[in-house]
Amino acid sequence: MITNRDVHATMPYNTQETENNGEHMQERIAVIDLGSNTTRMIVVGYVAHQTFKLLDEVREAVRLAQGIDKAGNLSASAMARAINTMRLFHQMCQGIGVDRIIPVATSAVREATNREEFLARVQVEAGLDFRVLTAQEEAYYGYLGAVNTLNVYDGCVVDIGGGSTQISKVHQRLLQTSISRPIGAVRLTDRYIKSDPVSARHYKMLQTAIQKQFADVAWLPGHGGELAGIGGTIRAIAEIDQKLTRHPIDRVHGHVLTAERVYELVEMFKGMTVKQREDIPGLSRDRADIILAGSTILAEIMRSGQFTQISVSGQGLREGVFFEEFTRGSSALIHDIRSFSVYNLARMYNYEAVHSAKVRELALSLFDQLYPLHEYDNQTRELLGHAAILHDIGNAVNYYDHHKHGAYLIVNSPMQGFTHREVAILALLVRYHRKGDVSLDQYKSMLLPGDRVLVSRMAAILRLAEFLERRKNQVVQALTVEIGKTVRIVTISAGDSAVEVWDANRAAGLFRKAFGCDVDIV
Amino acid sequence: MITNRDVHATMPYNTQETENNGEHMQERIAVIDLGSNTTRMIVVGYVAHQTFKLLDEVREAVRLAQGIDKAGNLSASAMARAINTMRLFHQMCQGIGVDRIIPVATSAVREATNREEFLARVQVEAGLDFRVLTAQEEAYYGYLGAVNTLNVYDGCVVDIGGGSTQISKVHQRLLQTSISRPIGAVRLTDRYIKSDPVSARHYKMLQTAIQKQFADVAWLPGHGGELAGIGGTIRAIAEIDQKLTRHPIDRVHGHVLTAERVYELVEMFKGMTVKQREDIPGLSRDRADIILAGSTILAEIMRSGQFTQISVSGQGLREGVFFEEFTRGSSALIHDIRSFSVYNLARMYNYEAVHSAKVRELALSLFDQLYPLHEYDNQTRELLGHAAILHDIGNAVNYYDHHKHGAYLIVNSPMQGFTHREVAILALLVRYHRKGDVSLDQYKSMLLPGDRVLVSRMAAILRLAEFLERRKNQVVQALTVEIGKTVRIVTISAGDSAVEVWDANRAAGLFRKAFGCDVDIV
Repeated sequence: MITNRDVHATMPYNTQETENNGEHMQERIAVIDLGSNTTRMIVVGYVAHQTFKLLDEVREAVRLAQGIDKAGNLSASAMARAINTMRLFHQMCQGIGVDRIIPVATSAVREATNREEFLARVQVEAGLDFRVLTAQEEAYYGYLGAVNTLNVYDGCVVDIGGGSTQISKVHQRLLQTSISRPIGAVRLTDRYIKSDPVSARHYKMLQTAIQKQFADVAWLPGHGGELAGIGGTIRAIAEIDQKLTRHPIDRVHGHVLTAERVYELVEMFKGMTVKQREDIPGLSRDRADIILAGSTILAEIMRSGQFTQISVSGQGLREGVFFEEFTRGSSALIHDIRSFSVYNLARMYNYEAVHSAKVRELALSLFDQLYPLHEYDNQTRELLGHAAILHDIGNAVNYYDHHKHGAYLIVNSPMQGFTHREVAILALLVRYHRKGDVSLDQYKSMLLPGDRVLVSRMAAILRLAEFLERRKNQVVQALTVEIGKTVRIVTISAGDSAVEVWDANRAAGLFRKAFGCDVDIV
Repeated sequence: MITNRDVHATMPYNTQETENNGEHMQERIAVIDLGSNTTRMIVVGYVAHQTFKLLDEVREAVRLAQGIDKAGNLSASAMARAINTMRLFHQMCQGIGVDRIIPVATSAVREATNREEFLARVQVEAGLDFRVLTAQEEAYYGYLGAVNTLNVYDGCVVDIGGGSTQISKVHQRLLQTSISRPIGAVRLTDRYIKSDPVSARHYKMLQTAIQKQFADVAWLPGHGGELAGIGGTIRAIAEIDQKLTRHPIDRVHGHVLTAERVYELVEMFKGMTVKQREDIPGLSRDRADIILAGSTILAEIMRSGQFTQISVSGQGLREGVFFEEFTRGSSALIHDIRSFSVYNLARMYNYEAVHSAKVRELALSLFDQLYPLHEYDNQTRELLGHAAILHDIGNAVNYYDHHKHGAYLIVNSPMQGFTHREVAILALLVRYHRKGDVSLDQYKSMLLPGDRVLVSRMAAILRLAEFLERRKNQVVQALTVEIGKTVRIVTISAGDSAVEVWDANRAAGLFRKAFGCDVDIV
């Protein structure tokens, strides 16, 4: 059993500006994950402990687990498909100029009777020396991929693959224990889905088979807590939900599904033929047949564990394997994934570190001193600070409308550890940091009732802080706030701050609206 | 009179990849333009002859020409406003770390009786040593800003300012002659707009006054040809038109207005009070009073010159002054502004130069050999080549959906020399270079009837070229096309191109649809 390395080790992640941006990563690594249904390869550029960026991804539905015979042998045609794909992936790595390839195989290979024959052929014919992960390792890397990219503190991580399913129990971000069961979307489809649409009898058999697999897991029933989900089946469910609800953020990572919604979608799949499912928006054709069995596994786990919702991860085993390399020499857990993600993004767009840090400091000082007027909690304070760091990244696109470009970049970047609501708030704060009356734009459907006021007030604070740093030279060093009928902001300056005071007063309109009182900057 | 330096000098602009991106420009220059209505400052980062990027811009409605007395003196309050603003701008330059400031003044200062007194005060009180441009110089720099950023080959450039209007006659991109007249949006408002809304009598007087100013310009009546427009008045008209028509590209540069549309908008302004105009979408409040006089100047010029349309420039005098620095030592005209703009953008996002050049080469080879099937002209060929250079820039945002991010970046970048229709086509080609069925998305209203087919076919060609460079290693060196019932594309490779041939065949669906015939890549 793999244990967690010390998560409390000194934080090694550089949050200072570095010379590296996404295109000048020092190393390139490829991770190949040969699963039962799909095989995927990611190519990541990175500077260890500092920053990383996905450079390429390729996937192929090899379906290695399809047609396994009674003796447990991979079929000749499945092996041929896999070897051919692996050869192409290997050539691709050579073409792209990858420094290192880590090929890993999971349950389909692990459990195959003819596994040695297959591995030897892949070695000779495709030049790749696969590491076959144990069920425990498979669960560990999935867990690592999830906790380094989603906020999972206490709860479970579930990974539904083509041939197996892992559930990992997480306590204070640490892996407590995990189970692996030989049920997956492909395997169960092969075995139980014998009618189209599925008959009630076959479906009942499928459900019973899944329930039996978890009957001996004492900690699962009623476990509750946070649930994170990885693997193609869960990603597909999230994509379908997003398409059907016209979700305004086009990325599954961080998407939240309630248990009811999952049950609803399973019912929908159940009533359709494979052909009908091919037209479901968001579902790729090569998953139309196996989505029913896959989603039923999830539904049964959520029911048993009494999980009220699931956070979907776009990252999983492959990323877990990558994180092990990325963090080599220290804890495999990235300490504060939200800050890490924000600074990673800021560096990517060559943000001005000193200016942004000052805007953050002034904004947080305003937040703290204005507390009696807003009473927002620490989570809001944290978002304001992150928005301050990111406020100017849109300059990389175009100075004109850089507030809009910044919002676009945030919504389209892997904002790890943030829910989509939080991503939308960050984007809106950046959108309104310079000008404009706050509107919730396309994000309205994702926000909570009080968020319009929250965004207006935080944007008003950020805007004042930004204009107090108009010349980006830290002339306004600090400020004190006097709350009266008019809010008086007294700047403490290291020189002539006439430009800043002039600009901040010009930009104070939003503050007046958001806080409903006058403001005077002196 | 300033003459054009030799435009046929060797092209000095580097179109190869360099180490510089937008954030690491070697020099920073500020150009301040003290006009009659507004004063603006731009800060540009640049590497001479190679690349440049706008870093900051600030504007203030100083209205220097307001309240000039009968003796032609600038008013005390106008001078005080200007000096105060200049001091703030100067401080801002110091804060931002500008290497060099070029402050220029135009007609309001040039014609002021107390000009020397004013300049001496600006020198002492704001520390800025202004160069007062002659009317000819003013016209020249405006012309330079326009021809280096818009396609103007034969025609005129008109610059309507607060205090004066210049018209430059352009032949084969060279400045032939120019006139400057002391009529501008602020000056004419002061003098003729004595009622609100304007009375028929006052408006007639305004029109007559404008017509008189151009009565002696023999070459203007019926001149025709291309018309480019610069200055705040013309930008404002474009912004209003874009808001009213929900134009899908949010940038005035490159926007085209027909003469009819200009006359229509003038009629609209004429019927409204200043207060009513304040609510016109796209019009800033501080221009609501002067837009009528300003737009009437444009309408009279278009009528007299029989120009059927005007291309709006977002760049003008300030950029002209900057271009003189940028091109110092060679022709002040950038040779091929479209290519320059494309490579400037590609470098900004650290494009992979060798890969992009190969995709371009393969795409153009396909275009040429498939000519009998499509018969598109050279302009389409040029767009295909530019799209090939830009196809991967969206990777800078996120590998996932990088085709969409690339389209976003193109639409939001200063694509100089391209009409908005061409920008939309480039964006769509990049959008569909990897996958998806071609849809014209939000750009439909800007495209011509045949553009759906054009975009589909060019995207199909670009997609094949991209997949023939799947590993980005130039293994497919060239190709020949055999046109029969099935189009056969025979690749000429420098090694094993199995990956590319496999991928290109997988990606050939769009080609089949767009060209209505089968394709086989071997």
